[in-house]
Order: sequence, then C-alpha cells, then structure tokens
Amino acid sequence: MAKKELKKVVLVVSKGNLDEAYPPLMIATGAATMGAEVHMFFTFYGINILKKKGGADSLKLSPVGNPAMPKPDFSPFQIPNIISALPGMTDIATWMMKRKIKQTGIMSIPELLKSAQEMGVKFWACTPTMKLMGIEEEDLIPTSGCIGVAGFLDMAADADVTLFI
Amino acid sequence: MAKKELKKVVLVVSKGNLDEAYPPLMIATGAATMGAEVHMFFTFYGINILKKKGGADSLKLSPVGNPAMPKPDFSPFQIPNIISALPGMTDIATWMMKRKIKQTGIMSIPELLKSAQEMGVKFWACTPTMKLMGIEEEDLIPTSGCIGVAGFLDMAADADVTLFI
Amino acid sequence: MAKKELKKVVLVVSKGNLDEAYPPLMIATGAATMGAEVHMFFTFYGINILKKKGGADSLKLSPVGNPAMPKPDFSPFQIPNIISALPGMTDIATWMMKRKIKQTGIMSIPELLKSAQEMGVKFWACTPTMKLMGIEEEDLIPTSGCIGVAGFLDMAADADVTLFI
Repeated sequence: MAKKELKKVVLVVSKGNLDEAYPPLMIATGAATMGAEVHMFFTFYGINILKKKGGADSLKLSPVGNPAMPKPDFSPFQIPNIISALPGMTDIATWMMKRKIKQTGIMSIPELLKSAQEMGVKFWACTPTMKLMGIEEEDLIPTSGCIGVAGFLDMAADADVTLFI
Repeated sequence: MAKKELKKVVLVVSKGNLDEAYPPLMIATGAATMGAEVHMFFTFYGINILKKKGGADSLKLSPVGNPAMPKPDFSPFQIPNIISALPGMTDIATWMMKRKIKQTGIMSIPELLKSAQEMGVKFWACTPTMKLMGIEEEDLIPTSGCIGVAGFLDMAADADVTLFI
Repeated sequence: MAKKELKKVVLVVSKGNLDEAYPPLMIATGAATMGAEVHMFFTFYGINILKKKGGADSLKLSPVGNPAMPKPDFSPFQIPNIISALPGMTDIATWMMKRKIKQTGIMSIPELLKSAQEMGVKFWACTPTMKLMGIEEEDLIPTSGCIGVAGFLDMAADADVTLFI
C-alpha cells in the first residue's frame, strides 16, 4: 500500500503562554509546507495569540510551576519557585527565552503567524471564548471567521490529523 | 466527494482544574449534539471531575504560573505570582472565574456533566489512576465503567477524532 | 462492519514533569501490547525524558499552580502555593509522588522507557528543540533518530491515533 499523503490538519490552540504558542505554529507551518490544508482553532487562553493589543508579540513565559524548564545559563541550579514568583521574574524569564530563540535563529511568534497566513493556514477564533473574555472580532488580527465547537468538529471530521494543543 | 460525517469522538480528560474541565465537556456536548457517539476517558487529574465529594462542583482555578490568564477586572495589571500564591488566592480566582462564567450564561461544570450524560455521552474512569489515587468506584458519579489504557485505545481505533486534553 | 484494529499510534511528548511523563508512556506501552506500531516524538520539555543526565530518573513534580493535585496524606488541607513555592518543596512533592507510585506497584519512568523500547516503540528526538536547548544527540539515550516537524507529520498521516500530550 502506498504511503498516505497528509491532506488536512486541524489544530486546537488552547494555550497562550510564549512556549506553548510554538508547537501549534510550528506544526501548522510544517503541514502547510507539505501541501496540507491547515486549520487552527484558537480557543481559551489560545485566543490571546490572535489579539492585536497584548497579543502575539506580548506572550509571556511562566517561570513558576514548571520544573522541566531548563535552568537559566547564569545560574548553577534551578531557580526555586519562591524566587520565580517575585514581581518581574515572569518578564525576565520571557526576555531570556526570547533572546535564546533569536540566537538559535528560530522565528518569533508574530513572524510565525505571518508566515502561516502567507502559506494559506486558516485561523478561526472561538466564539464562546470571545464571549467569556469580552473580546470583539475587531480586537483580533484578521481571521477566516469566528466559529463554535460544532464548526471545529465539522472541520475535524475528515482531517488526517487533529491535535488539541 | 461528500463531506464526511462525524460518527465517533473519543476524548482523554487528563486535567482537573476548573478552566481545564471546560474544553473536553464543551467538545463532548457539541459532538453529541451533532449526533456523534462520544466517549470520555477520565484519567490522572481529570478523574477529579467525576468525584462525588470534592468533584465537579469544587474544581479550582490556579492563578499561579499562567501569565496567559486575563487580568482581573479590578486590577490595572496582571497580579504577580508572589501575590497569587498567597493562601486564599486560588479560591478568589476560582470565585471570580465562576462569576464571569455565570454572567456570560455559560453552563457550570456540574451542569455540563449532567447535560453530557443526558445526551448519551459515555464516561469511563481510568483504573490505574483510581489505584494510584486510592479512589473506589463508589467515590465516583455513575459511569459506564472503569477501564485501562487498552480499553481507551480500543475505542480510539475507529474514532474520527481522538483528543488528549 | 468488523471492529477496526489498532495498527499505528503516534504520540507527541511535549511535557517533561514527572506526572506528565506517565500518560504518553502508558499509552505507548499499552498500544505496543495490542500489537500496534508506536512512535513517540519527544519535543519541547518532553525531550528531558530522553536525556542521559538529569533525564528520566530526575523528572520532578511541580506542587505549585496545580490545585487538582491530591493533597498530601499528612496534611488535612491542600498546601497553599506560597508554601509549595518554598525551596525544597518541589523535591518533597516529587519524593512523595514517587513513593506513592512505588507503593501502588506502578513502574517508574526509566522502567517504562526501557519496557517501551523492548516492545519496539520507536523514540524520535525533535531537531529544532535540540537546537534551542543546546542538546546534542550523544546527550540522549539511544533513539531511532532526530527528526523535525515534517518527519512527525509524515508518520502521523496514516496513524489511527495521533495525540499531542
């Protein structure tokens, strides 16, 4: 049997921290490069990524409650949560991560978003989330529309790969 | 080719915070409304949602380590983690989220659970999780049974959409 | 129609905390037992699990920001985040969880990894993650290779179940 071709990918983007925004965008652009039809459904905290103000370029990294995060270069040990929880530490961790990403030559989140849209990846905003968070369509960057769970499931029904991220 | 119909959806519910319980229950009820057969496999922290005592009506929201969470209405800025970590802040964040949900007209988690079961969504409890957490079947609301990973994979084998949430 | 057999499972392992390493490994070994071809793609924090030093046997549990975590046996109430954030509390929570897992007769993460490889489960390391975190192939336990997003999507295209964990 011939290898099956990747035709359609649907991604639920439910998280909005800086590190959590990378996997869906890297999978989306990768799938688009392979010629697949790609849909991203931005829901819950994920909708932050689409916001014009305080959106893709303002995502933060949480240094608290994630012992799997690599320790910073300047420190000989993992930073205790009580220190990471101090005011400003979220910004420091975010700045360090962004610098590391830039040094590695990986695209920023706004660049990945732009690249995804240029490749034809479709962005969909989740209507109940917008209602819950008081977000209007004009607060978001241009999308293919606002849909609910039924709209997402309809797209997923015939997808080759559907992931909740 | 005619559009494929959504016939079967399988959801792994692995998380048990208040905000994390919404996505699987909204997808489950949405899929059931579309006529699909829906199975929810409650595992790890997700099993909390099925508990009679300290279950669906006692889920909490963590205000710590989630910079993507919208800032509270009364505050001009995001609350630093060191403040959010103080005793009682988890309860305050939970209360604020529940109020917001109610104001928006979204169902509570116990209401969504009841609604899902009335629509025929099947609930399955994860046996190894119950063993690990010392939970007995009588500690849980009525389910379709307790199964292990093999039982879940068997259901997922012919599902149109399987999500790990 | 005869029940469909589970032939191929692809798992994205994106998280590297102790509790988060269990679900993918339990699903992988379960699927392998059922005779399926199983691939695990270790990406982002998940790559920690494959590290020789500070890897599978050093994963930690975060006691902060997870109100769904069961309260410790010795305490009559959930530990407030401000206490859980103190230095050493991550190690205490990790130690307590490991003891509980052992008492329940559940395998440790290194045991599950070994068992998965003996059953023929394929491990793949994510190339961009290695670049970002400065990890070389010799820092990792033996894998089937280092691949990017395209390699993962190629495997997922004809899988029966693909999960992002």
